[in-house]
Amino acid sequence: MFEFSLEFESSECQARLGSFSTPHGNIKTPVFMPVGTKATVKSLDYKDLQLLKTEILLCNTYHLEMRPSSKLIAKMGGLHKWMKWDAPILTDSGGFQVYSLSNNVKITEEGVEFKSHLNGDKHMFTPEHAIAIQERLGADIIMAFDECAPAGVSKEYARMAMKRTHAWIKRCISAKTREDQALFPIVQGSCFKDLREESAKFMADLDLPGIAIGGVSVGEDHEKKFTAINYALPYLPKDKPRYLMGVGTPRDLLEAVACGIDMFDCVLATRLARHGAFWSLQGRKNIKASQYKEDLSPLCNWVEHYASKEFSKSYIHHLIKENEILGIRLLSMHNIAFLFQLMKEIRYHIREGSFMSFKNTFLKKFHSYDQAA
Amino acid sequence: MFEFSLEFESSECQARLGSFSTPHGNIKTPVFMPVGTKATVKSLDYKDLQLLKTEILLCNTYHLEMRPSSKLIAKMGGLHKWMKWDAPILTDSGGFQVYSLSNNVKITEEGVEFKSHLNGDKHMFTPEHAIAIQERLGADIIMAFDECAPAGVSKEYARMAMKRTHAWIKRCISAKTREDQALFPIVQGSCFKDLREESAKFMADLDLPGIAIGGVSVGEDHEKKFTAINYALPYLPKDKPRYLMGVGTPRDLLEAVACGIDMFDCVLATRLARHGAFWSLQGRKNIKASQYKEDLSPLCNWVEHYASKEFSKSYIHHLIKENEILGIRLLSMHNIAFLFQLMKEIRYHIREGSFMSFKNTFLKKFHSYDQAA
Repeated sequence: MFEFSLEFESSECQARLGSFSTPHGNIKTPVFMPVGTKATVKSLDYKDLQLLKTEILLCNTYHLEMRPSSKLIAKMGGLHKWMKWDAPILTDSGGFQVYSLSNNVKITEEGVEFKSHLNGDKHMFTPEHAIAIQERLGADIIMAFDECAPAGVSKEYARMAMKRTHAWIKRCISAKTREDQALFPIVQGSCFKDLREESAKFMADLDLPGIAIGGVSVGEDHEKKFTAINYALPYLPKDKPRYLMGVGTPRDLLEAVACGIDMFDCVLATRLARHGAFWSLQGRKNIKASQYKEDLSPLCNWVEHYASKEFSKSYIHHLIKENEILGIRLLSMHNIAFLFQLMKEIRYHIREGSFMSFKNTFLKKFHSYDQAA
Repeated sequence: MFEFSLEFESSECQARLGSFSTPHGNIKTPVFMPVGTKATVKSLDYKDLQLLKTEILLCNTYHLEMRPSSKLIAKMGGLHKWMKWDAPILTDSGGFQVYSLSNNVKITEEGVEFKSHLNGDKHMFTPEHAIAIQERLGADIIMAFDECAPAGVSKEYARMAMKRTHAWIKRCISAKTREDQALFPIVQGSCFKDLREESAKFMADLDLPGIAIGGVSVGEDHEKKFTAINYALPYLPKDKPRYLMGVGTPRDLLEAVACGIDMFDCVLATRLARHGAFWSLQGRKNIKASQYKEDLSPLCNWVEHYASKEFSKSYIHHLIKENEILGIRLLSMHNIAFLFQLMKEIRYHIREGSFMSFKNTFLKKFHSYDQAA
């Protein structure tokens, strides 16, 4: 269990192909994980995810703990059974949402005190709590409780947050009791070379089944993001899956795969859908644009999914303009399918030795305006 | 085309089994038609409707004409192609919605002037317009433009509305040009015996491929509704499908089938879902009730659909409490599947000669609180 087999390494760049085994099945990497924040990828159920050929889902610990609580989900048989998803799941530690969503956040060595964004109730998350909650949820991969500093913090603050993250991972390891869950540590260190190096080495030394890079996509620009990633990467073990947290535009996926990243998650696919936005080979578009009112062409023939190929833009334009749930649903499925199609092509071209030319051709056509809505 | 074959008549009551042929396939009656107001049964696409084994859909002319317009839909290839529904569709004439949704309604012999509920734009629907719009939409069954008087009108008013409806059906027939659409007339006459009889006879004499009873479920109580239906029924031809407009609680379906009705439509199944309500064999329930928070049982094992059988009430309770689209979607599929299951059992028991005992057993368990949300 939790074996990573490195199956192929590109000679063109750092990209690699691998396979990671979990109690609910194997994952072929590089892999994109759709986000099912509240135990559902918005508007989709397990059948929809199967049709999309989803390999692994991410669910959010913070949201599930605030409501309905990990204790209730455990009582219902755990996350897999409750949401009827019999394939791998990864849960985050709740850390990122505590900092970004909740109120009155107070960080100490012990953990994080905060008030729920739902009802103002006081909570405390410590590394021990984060592990206990994730053990109750029962995902295949669970994440260390870290301090994710926002973009632009001072080096002093970044160092303190990193040190705290290092102390906390030790406590996470001690608190962990389940053998059937893989714990991934998270490299921090903001945009500082020496901190990223130090954190990467520290986390690599723990010899856990995988390793994540956190603290990116927190407000910094594209260049800084990849600078920070590249500071850490040389120090990550080759024989473990490398997970880049919260990253998921088509451009980011291509560039991060080239750097040797294996796992990704991002809410963008479904969030864009709720705003009427969709990806095509030409970049990000919005279906509400009047040009689509009488457009009989499908969203994107390149993508092997019925939502992408079978409905006219005219019909989906109408659904979104009328606030019909089906419009959001079709665009959500399409955007996820688009990323899956991209990952499939990426894996194919890595193997064929044509990844860099695929990447360059794709990005040349793909308009770079692909940031979060 | 548009042949109704009466396949079996119950010896217990007026219930019957039949089959109606349309350009997009045959419909087995009695049949329930889910409502896809704006060219989508809310939250569902053609694949979902196929999985539910939907035989025929209803779409609303008024909504589609207000936005995006029948002219646009015609340009896109018609309603079937646009929404990717390759099976029968029925469109209403828009009359009912003009009276119930729009503003500044002014009814004359010529037709109805009104202002759109969306933007206040002035419109005029006449029998000729209603036919032209429905010809552009391209449904298999189209409905006559009628005046649907609300519950409680005076006999004088009811007679005037009926007479207008009789004059208008003649104009509908003259206006109709497409051979591949069946036009159904609508019997009116409110709750008055002689008016219902007169209207039923008048419409029956037109010898059109089917016939509808309108002006029920417009605010009157259960008893009055069935009194009105029963005034008309003896005068309707046996060899034509009989459509009871806007009726669709489980109780109404059972009772109306016993009277000899063949076709039904109602928005209740999907509307209830949006409020968290669902049908079970015990009657209407609401999934938001705290008793379901930790309930591992499915919505209703009696119903042969994955939304009804595979998810726990606990999970759907959570989805609806969190305003997750998937909650509405699962309840919508379940409620439609519940009515389809009921219709399937009804057809089976009519054939077996056990319909009345099935009906009585069902209604004894089924709590009568099954009115609109």
